[in-house]
Amino acid sequence: MNYEAVVIGCGPAGLSAAIYLGRAKIKTLLVGKQKDSQLIKAHKIENYFGFPEGITGKDLLNKGIKQTKKFGVEVKPNNEVVDAKSIKAGFEIKLEDGSCHNTKVMIIATGTPIKLTSILNEEKFIGKGLHYCVECDGAFYTKKNVIIVGNGNHAAEDALDLLVFTNKITLISNADKFEFSCEMDKALNKHKIKKVIKKISEFKGGKLLDTVVFDDKKVIKIDGVFMACGTASALDFSNKLGLMVEKNILRVDKNNMTNVKGIFAAGNCCGKCRQVAKNVGDGCNAGTSAIKYLRNKKIYFDYSKS
Amino acid sequence: MNYEAVVIGCGPAGLSAAIYLGRAKIKTLLVGKQKDSQLIKAHKIENYFGFPEGITGKDLLNKGIKQTKKFGVEVKPNNEVVDAKSIKAGFEIKLEDGSCHNTKVMIIATGTPIKLTSILNEEKFIGKGLHYCVECDGAFYTKKNVIIVGNGNHAAEDALDLLVFTNKITLISNADKFEFSCEMDKALNKHKIKKVIKKISEFKGGKLLDTVVFDDKKVIKIDGVFMACGTASALDFSNKLGLMVEKNILRVDKNNMTNVKGIFAAGNCCGKCRQVAKNVGDGCNAGTSAIKYLRNKKIYFDYSKS
Repeated sequence: MNYEAVVIGCGPAGLSAAIYLGRAKIKTLLVGKQKDSQLIKAHKIENYFGFPEGITGKDLLNKGIKQTKKFGVEVKPNNEVVDAKSIKAGFEIKLEDGSCHNTKVMIIATGTPIKLTSILNEEKFIGKGLHYCVECDGAFYTKKNVIIVGNGNHAAEDALDLLVFTNKITLISNADKFEFSCEMDKALNKHKIKKVIKKISEFKGGKLLDTVVFDDKKVIKIDGVFMACGTASALDFSNKLGLMVEKNILRVDKNNMTNVKGIFAAGNCCGKCRQVAKNVGDGCNAGTSAIKYLRNKKIYFDYSKS
Repeated sequence: MNYEAVVIGCGPAGLSAAIYLGRAKIKTLLVGKQKDSQLIKAHKIENYFGFPEGITGKDLLNKGIKQTKKFGVEVKPNNEVVDAKSIKAGFEIKLEDGSCHNTKVMIIATGTPIKLTSILNEEKFIGKGLHYCVECDGAFYTKKNVIIVGNGNHAAEDALDLLVFTNKITLISNADKFEFSCEMDKALNKHKIKKVIKKISEFKGGKLLDTVVFDDKKVIKIDGVFMACGTASALDFSNKLGLMVEKNILRVDKNNMTNVKGIFAAGNCCGKCRQVAKNVGDGCNAGTSAIKYLRNKKIYFDYSKS
């Protein structure tokens, strides 16, 4: 099939981009495994403008899918792109189901999937007492007993950010040692944040995570866990397309275009804060830029100079 | 009163920033005349992720105000900042009601207010057949008879963007001549877009705008009007604060900070596409950056290096 635009990723950035493309009557395919999105596990999003009562990640994503389809976008929420290459007329993509499609522009909105540790039951408790973002979910643990798992500055920063909500914070290395910067370590000490060097073997609980089991079989009771072990790159095919990547994130310009003409990117795979709001904005910017890019080509002049 | 943060502007960018600040327990004041916002007049927003049935601008803004208050932000939606200056501890602002307040950070989200022409009834029909953004509202005029008012490339670009929805488009200069670039003019001719050099004296209609009256008393019937005469700068106090402005927009870095430490900006006053989604994302980025800025100061080290 030939498309004008293919959006890869069914999260807020991809959906927002697809809404703009569809509404501008661009022939668009949206593809990505929605069940793998981090958002689908979020039990409550409180900080996305327009939802004063909060909304679950699943409900928000479903609203987005409905909105996208309304504007004529073809949505494949249970499929994924397994290969992509540049061709003369744009790009050729191959989906998991074996089908091949051509497109003039691509928007990559694949997020930064969580790099799971080897701790037992980590995945099971995501959004149920186990989180990856203090900015998003810290407020739910006001005055609660929380651990942060990680041994670098990212974990230390999470601990310091949590201080406005609770002072019952323990940093657990899950490695042989901590690797904080000197200043970070000073700040942790100043705020009397407990540091424990120990490996975790398992998370336990009922409906919600409430127990941490260590390698030495010791257990502790907790209210919540924030994982701060870093994330893996989603961009397995970025090399093939020659996209510039820096520190695991895609380089884009102010129009959310990558260094390759016709390939745009939006959302967590472009870095900055990992928030629904920011990613929806990113998707909007990538979508409107892609529309201009497509129309430029059609009418043979550069709008940006107008 | 002393605040940690003052957000100027009650539109999507300001509200989104305030939601983040409030939720992080930053003592925040949000101030701006909501009745002057362009969004309040939007009869239907279809492209903001999460609202598949669409939502009116007024309803969306009210949801945002409710959400902001929920997180403890003090909201003054009928007031405005009339003066601002740098002081040792941050900034001092003066409100229209005469009160003065200090704050450590400021977020400017004042939008780009419409520069009204001298055409009679322009303001009366805003959102009722008269619009300022083809990207936002063009889709409502599919196969309809539409005029675009303006004599520069901005107007020409709007006309070309409208082509996907309708071919019944007339450009009206409302000035002595058109000032399109050569390429733009070629594209207009290629698409047979009608160009009329004439001054408009009045818009007329019932509930909806349906008639344009010219200086020579001639009238035409239309379904919709897009104004493309340029916008005025909202930043009347930017000079006083030494903010860098380029082509009527505020210069910000990737954290949405201006060239003055502690002053952030978000939304239409920072340029790029004038969309609710983009502005909500901008507000999120400015809000989270301001939180980091405030916490840095408190604990004396630079998170950005971690």
